[in-house]
Amino acid sequence: MSATIPDRMQAVQLEKEGGLLTVGQIPVPRPGPGEVLVRMAASPINPSDLGFLSGGFGYQRELPIVPGIEGSGRVMDAGPGWLGKFLTGKRVACTKSTNSGGTWAGYMVTKASGCIPLQKNIPLEQGAMLVVNPMTAVVFFDILKQGGHTAFVNTAAASALGRMLLRLSLKRGVPLINIVRRTDQAEILRVLGAEYILVSTDADFDQKLHDLAHRLNATLLLDAIAGEFTQQLVNAAPKKSVILVYSILSGKPAQIMPNTLWHDDKRIEGFYLATWASNHNLLKILSVAQTAQKMLGSDLQTDVHKRLPLSSIREGLDLYQKNMTAGKILLVIDSQEVSISA
Amino acid sequence: MSATIPDRMQAVQLEKEGGLLTVGQIPVPRPGPGEVLVRMAASPINPSDLGFLSGGFGYQRELPIVPGIEGSGRVMDAGPGWLGKFLTGKRVACTKSTNSGGTWAGYMVTKASGCIPLQKNIPLEQGAMLVVNPMTAVVFFDILKQGGHTAFVNTAAASALGRMLLRLSLKRGVPLINIVRRTDQAEILRVLGAEYILVSTDADFDQKLHDLAHRLNATLLLDAIAGEFTQQLVNAAPKKSVILVYSILSGKPAQIMPNTLWHDDKRIEGFYLATWASNHNLLKILSVAQTAQKMLGSDLQTDVHKRLPLSSIREGLDLYQKNMTAGKILLVIDSQEVSISA
Repeated sequence: MSATIPDRMQAVQLEKEGGLLTVGQIPVPRPGPGEVLVRMAASPINPSDLGFLSGGFGYQRELPIVPGIEGSGRVMDAGPGWLGKFLTGKRVACTKSTNSGGTWAGYMVTKASGCIPLQKNIPLEQGAMLVVNPMTAVVFFDILKQGGHTAFVNTAAASALGRMLLRLSLKRGVPLINIVRRTDQAEILRVLGAEYILVSTDADFDQKLHDLAHRLNATLLLDAIAGEFTQQLVNAAPKKSVILVYSILSGKPAQIMPNTLWHDDKRIEGFYLATWASNHNLLKILSVAQTAQKMLGSDLQTDVHKRLPLSSIREGLDLYQKNMTAGKILLVIDSQEVSISA
Repeated sequence: MSATIPDRMQAVQLEKEGGLLTVGQIPVPRPGPGEVLVRMAASPINPSDLGFLSGGFGYQRELPIVPGIEGSGRVMDAGPGWLGKFLTGKRVACTKSTNSGGTWAGYMVTKASGCIPLQKNIPLEQGAMLVVNPMTAVVFFDILKQGGHTAFVNTAAASALGRMLLRLSLKRGVPLINIVRRTDQAEILRVLGAEYILVSTDADFDQKLHDLAHRLNATLLLDAIAGEFTQQLVNAAPKKSVILVYSILSGKPAQIMPNTLWHDDKRIEGFYLATWASNHNLLKILSVAQTAQKMLGSDLQTDVHKRLPLSSIREGLDLYQKNMTAGKILLVIDSQEVSISA
């Protein structure tokens, strides 16, 4: 298929730390062993992209680099390796590999194992948003079950991931305490059917969270905030709780007085989907992906606020940062393939 | 035996937060259900006592209160309960219960389960220092084994506990990276036979720790410092490491950027012996105590720097804080019983 691949492509680039993104023409990369070349169709802006751009998440990269963590497209070529050969020609959800370019470009080279074949009924639009949020939501329920937890707490609960966790918790009958910052976010979750919603800026928030977490025995606390908020979660958590920190929306290190861990046997763990994937075999990962795809049109659907071309990336970032609760900004890279697929 | 118990006793007291300790006469307490009355013989000053006095460890207490976390003595009376009856008349190592008075007094009421019967050959002096350091050392090796770790890191490694861990690591052939703050502390450990010693104030400490921890695959890191040092340990630790925070010598909350946990699947746990004990049955606790007693005269021996009466508590605290590496300050409460026992 390589005859149809051009030499150059349109791409968003981060050229220097803290600098503005540029959009231009750069060479199409070539896949090495175990890698594939994906012709990108669509890619969202996620909070983890903001983390990547700010450098705050500790991602390794050499500049200039193409940002973008997840997306969808078609595998056009593959380096040596059976998985890449298998994927060639297929529609996939795909994620950026460590140390190489991302999804905000016409083409991306990534590890074959960073691609998930899309089922026929999944449009490339929703497929572009399969991994970061829906698969994480499914994995969180797996962690919940493996850890013997019977109720849990989520933070930044009005986020795309937060809404997915809420819908799954309602469907599966697992009590979920939803923490949001603002009352308008609380209202959104109420409409979705949330039973337990706490607003972290309320004066008696700490006491309410403590009482509710103890009453429901919510021993898994998903922390997207870090900073001093991690200590608030630790303080409110029942005995033997796990605080799973999966993002750093505060931009600050988690702060924890050790005695608050040791007196009631609580612990702090980190969660990152790529690390989780590297600790599980392909079968488990594909099983999670299949579960996520089954619900991609329903409980795990992502609301798209606005569709923009790659060239409007700066406008997209502005829009997203102004109101992350409104829905995702989706970069439509190959509008023809996206519309055929829809 | 209750006929021989006086109405009043000499006791050290913390009367107000941050205040100086006082020594005076107060009523002898009476044991309730599940409790025993111990006639105290000796009690050390440990770093955890300094934490208790400063209020920094999150201990619950109502003032005035008798401080002192561990000691030895003889059980003189018991409230309802089979264990207390069994212990009555016996020489014991004992620890303070949450929310009640401690060991720096003529008598202490504590939970029967907070007492360990001393073997005949154990002098009350060493018995007074059985729990906090020797039992913790034995439990750390248990955690090491249960967690499948084959090498480990300790901080504040010139402490009484640090020296015990070093001697056990040499005897059991488990590589231990000893971290100290000063070169004179490094020298003490070198004389004891330590192979791996790092001084945390060295300019290239972070790199050295990283390289050595990776080379030895030291995946259990015992953190007595907290504050920013916890992040240094996390950064240096190999994949899938556990950072076990067991003290707060920096006095500051542990600070951790979550991405440094999630990228390599590391986690932070707290360790507190009383919490460990509450999660294990009496048989396991007595088995650990027996192991510790067997080595109390050798690998788990505590060096005593100075013996003082209860009335000299302030002098004792001064001496201890000036040079914690020199050895323990032991409060000898019943000099007659201690000398008979020795």
